[in-house]
Amino acid sequence: MPPLRTALLQSSGRAGAVDDNLAALDEAAARAAAAGARLLVCPELFLTGYAIGDAVPGLAEPADGPAARAVAGLCVRHGLAIHYGYPERAGEEIFNAAQLIGPDGTPLANYRKTHLYGGFEEKWFTPGEQPVVQAELDGVRIGLLICYDVEFPENVRAHALAGTELLLVPTALMQPYTFVAESVVPVRAFENQLYIAYVNRAGKEGEFDFTGLSCLAGPDGTARVRAGRGEELLVGEADPGLLAGSRAANPYIEDRRPGLYGSLV
Amino acid sequence: MPPLRTALLQSSGRAGAVDDNLAALDEAAARAAAAGARLLVCPELFLTGYAIGDAVPGLAEPADGPAARAVAGLCVRHGLAIHYGYPERAGEEIFNAAQLIGPDGTPLANYRKTHLYGGFEEKWFTPGEQPVVQAELDGVRIGLLICYDVEFPENVRAHALAGTELLLVPTALMQPYTFVAESVVPVRAFENQLYIAYVNRAGKEGEFDFTGLSCLAGPDGTARVRAGRGEELLVGEADPGLLAGSRAANPYIEDRRPGLYGSLV
Repeated sequence: MPPLRTALLQSSGRAGAVDDNLAALDEAAARAAAAGARLLVCPELFLTGYAIGDAVPGLAEPADGPAARAVAGLCVRHGLAIHYGYPERAGEEIFNAAQLIGPDGTPLANYRKTHLYGGFEEKWFTPGEQPVVQAELDGVRIGLLICYDVEFPENVRAHALAGTELLLVPTALMQPYTFVAESVVPVRAFENQLYIAYVNRAGKEGEFDFTGLSCLAGPDGTARVRAGRGEELLVGEADPGLLAGSRAANPYIEDRRPGLYGSLV
Repeated sequence: MPPLRTALLQSSGRAGAVDDNLAALDEAAARAAAAGARLLVCPELFLTGYAIGDAVPGLAEPADGPAARAVAGLCVRHGLAIHYGYPERAGEEIFNAAQLIGPDGTPLANYRKTHLYGGFEEKWFTPGEQPVVQAELDGVRIGLLICYDVEFPENVRAHALAGTELLLVPTALMQPYTFVAESVVPVRAFENQLYIAYVNRAGKEGEFDFTGLSCLAGPDGTARVRAGRGEELLVGEADPGLLAGSRAANPYIEDRRPGLYGSLV
């Protein structure tokens, strides 16, 4: 199985300006494709911006809404999969969601954040109820989480047990929590023996100051690529061959004793 | 509640020489007490050495055996609690165990490693069956794990859910796994909002090359004290006041959704 070249778009786009953000995504997808990437991952709520307050209901749209069709068009045009965060409308409910669309424009998976963070999210969003959402891309088992979800070891463990090889985590990590990007994410990759593409916003937006520091963390606990604090497009590889060797050397999943973990549920 | 001053004895002692190791413990306890410590934590299997191979059955003794009585005498003499690793005999079975004895010489808790590591341990030891063992010292809730146990997020989470404030982890971490001491242990402290005293062996012993790098990790993800590669006695503080503030700012335990974690058990 060849490595999956994966691009990470560290950018905050423009709050409330969906068309501008789609244009930025078009430009990033062109650069990612030129760099050989088969997958482009965006931050949490990239489509609309994060600090959009009362605009959430007006900007939310269904998983098969006009923005999804626009992103599908970009996937086909540039020949790569795109994973983007957006506010998803489903009847009266709005979810903090992220959708993966394949290189041929087919929606592959849609995930609704299960662990909401802070007052802003709790005000506007309904928590998702499905902990493990997966898809397959070029033979690699992809898993989906969003931001705060990854800070809970239980969520990433559930993905490892379900066979996830590359976990996509759009995020909106803010100051002072650099420890999460720098330490927690690589440890999650190591303890679960998988890759994690952790893709953050950058710079100030309303009351928030996002940390950047996006990374593609590998099963050896290293950041294969690591962004700085500003806007950046990174490209790294999720290598199933390296993953298989690392899993053989670090048998955390085989050495678990689930019969002792009853207090966790 | 005042901070609990805790000493970490990073030392390999002398393999197979129980009397020498008790003498080293006596000397370390004197220095720890002089530094104001109320608790001294030793590495995994400190009493006997780790790389003792076929000598395990001959050196194993019951939790209330002569070594336990000798350690209890040191506790009383120096006025502090001691937590030491040893091979525990219980009938035909031998456990990789660690025992906490209080400042008055009373045994407070005995833990048997549940997640054995590698061929040497699997050959000689029976895995323990009790995931959470706790005791109270000076009003602080103490929890016990050993080495490889702490690399499984499930084990530390179970302690957090049971109220552990200071987790004692005697260890025998070897090259090339410095990532565990440097990153995994501080992340466990952060994600579970507790202190971890991770106390390692140092230097070469038989086929093993121990990494040192013992630390007292705090709930903010920092190492409050951190050893180098050689023999060392460290003293740090587990501060219930700092812990309470950190828990209020990082509500990981409250924000869990146990109903979504069913696949872990």
